[in-house]
Amino acid sequence: MALLLMTGNWKPETWREAFGEAAPGRTILIHGTDGYDPADIRYAATWKPPQGVLAALPKLEAIFNLGAGVDALMGDPTLPDVPIVRVVDDNLTKRMGEWVVLQVLIHHRRVLTYLEQQRRHEWIDRRPQPIAEDVRVGFMGYGVLARHAAPILIALGYQVHAWARTPRDTDVTLHVGEDGLGEFLAGTDVLVCLLPLTPDTRRILNARLIGGLATDGPLGGPVLVNAGRGGLQDEDDILRALQSGALAGASLDVFQTEPLPADHPLWDAPNLVITPHNSAISDHRAIARYVAGQIAAYEAGEPLQNVVARDRGY
Amino acid sequence: MALLLMTGNWKPETWREAFGEAAPGRTILIHGTDGYDPADIRYAATWKPPQGVLAALPKLEAIFNLGAGVDALMGDPTLPDVPIVRVVDDNLTKRMGEWVVLQVLIHHRRVLTYLEQQRRHEWIDRRPQPIAEDVRVGFMGYGVLARHAAPILIALGYQVHAWARTPRDTDVTLHVGEDGLGEFLAGTDVLVCLLPLTPDTRRILNARLIGGLATDGPLGGPVLVNAGRGGLQDEDDILRALQSGALAGASLDVFQTEPLPADHPLWDAPNLVITPHNSAISDHRAIARYVAGQIAAYEAGEPLQNVVARDRGY
Repeated sequence: MALLLMTGNWKPETWREAFGEAAPGRTILIHGTDGYDPADIRYAATWKPPQGVLAALPKLEAIFNLGAGVDALMGDPTLPDVPIVRVVDDNLTKRMGEWVVLQVLIHHRRVLTYLEQQRRHEWIDRRPQPIAEDVRVGFMGYGVLARHAAPILIALGYQVHAWARTPRDTDVTLHVGEDGLGEFLAGTDVLVCLLPLTPDTRRILNARLIGGLATDGPLGGPVLVNAGRGGLQDEDDILRALQSGALAGASLDVFQTEPLPADHPLWDAPNLVITPHNSAISDHRAIARYVAGQIAAYEAGEPLQNVVARDRGY
Repeated sequence: MALLLMTGNWKPETWREAFGEAAPGRTILIHGTDGYDPADIRYAATWKPPQGVLAALPKLEAIFNLGAGVDALMGDPTLPDVPIVRVVDDNLTKRMGEWVVLQVLIHHRRVLTYLEQQRRHEWIDRRPQPIAEDVRVGFMGYGVLARHAAPILIALGYQVHAWARTPRDTDVTLHVGEDGLGEFLAGTDVLVCLLPLTPDTRRILNARLIGGLATDGPLGGPVLVNAGRGGLQDEDDILRALQSGALAGASLDVFQTEPLPADHPLWDAPNLVITPHNSAISDHRAIARYVAGQIAAYEAGEPLQNVVARDRGY
């Protein structure tokens, strides 16, 4: 009945404490710290576990992923065939909404330009400044995170539409699949990428995609906002697009290599906002409560929620 | 039946064109450009008109103020006793909403800190970063502008309350008058000032008010956001508060002297965001349509809307 925690360097004792509060009475073991019999482990709660460790647990019934993306897990060829549960954390969803709305407003209202003028003590009103109603925000990926941010952007006045791999019910215009991508991009001034990282989406944010974005919009060029995964980015292409003006601006919270190395040329790219992968911070206790709640329901005979579809990879 | 335009240097011909479209058939005259008989003027549409000019119009029936604040008009001791109509412009309201939400997010999500780190090529996640739900935003002044911005901030998760001079129906907790000010300030982490400038509110944003703001909030100190009027500010006090840390941050769109002089010390104040009085830009044509619509209704026997109360000054 034990729960095994595998969080690497990511605060294992903080996680132990959080799970201790959320699931009192359950045995909580930390891989690499506590000794354990693999046959005693029924559940694993993991973040980027070492390959092969999960495969060595003969009685494992479910894996709970402690972060928002399951790409690290899916890259393990020895991954056992048990349900993988994604975390759906209201707290993380709201923080991501803050970050996305902030980045759209930063580029729309030209914050970097005005801060630069402020450094030079320059009072210049750089009109015309479009109203939000003239700015088209397009979400790539329209899951829980985008569905939270979209209505806030709509309340601010933005035109919002979305692209997803498969059809689904949405309140906004949805473009679907390869066939719908061109039209989606051509009508997008600010692209907000919240895609999962899968073999299909790796390096999808490249020169070809950027070249498909609207160039007739009110911001002087398209803007790219990515808080998905660094692996979605072709960073050479993004750098060149910022330098050439093919992108009027960008906000990146994630990178191929994190921390972004101090000598990386993206640090000095024009009209780029960099945040250190903290757009949406997971709250340990909220996630532990979520996992404990799922386990309790599962043991009462209910199905697990938010289970990853292996074939699509998220 | 003529309409007299007095906009000083503020694009008089653009205004003439806008009113020509909005009120075809009406005689539109520009003070200082066109010759006119004062007895022919029935309406005046003005922005900071020279003192005494309005008093010289014997048949004047109404004054339409072309900007958001009537403080310049109210300062004219010769102002004739006819209705003064405030502009209520949906476009201006929405732009102000963009600016207010942006400034709250900038300080909450520490944009200035991360941009400074970016300049130094530093990847540092400065936790703890509070969630919006832990941040209390207080509006001083709860008119059309604040009522538009408040629900967007609430959708982002912020706690929102307000202070106003007189009781009114609101969706948020409202503190009223002098007696309610202390409690309002003590529960405010981010103060958003959208007050009109009147003799009662001049220099209200001073050390005493700043000293009443919450110091137990999650942002390391209180934040001041002002898009009302520069006259509301004691700029020496605000500067000192930023330098001492009594204010953790501020965003100012308006100043005692505009443009802000290049040698003004506020340009270099820490944690301050300066924009050149462009938080909300008036759309000439939208305002002309609004004024023309009011005149048409008035001439059809209906009362004027959004008339300034002389005793309160807005």
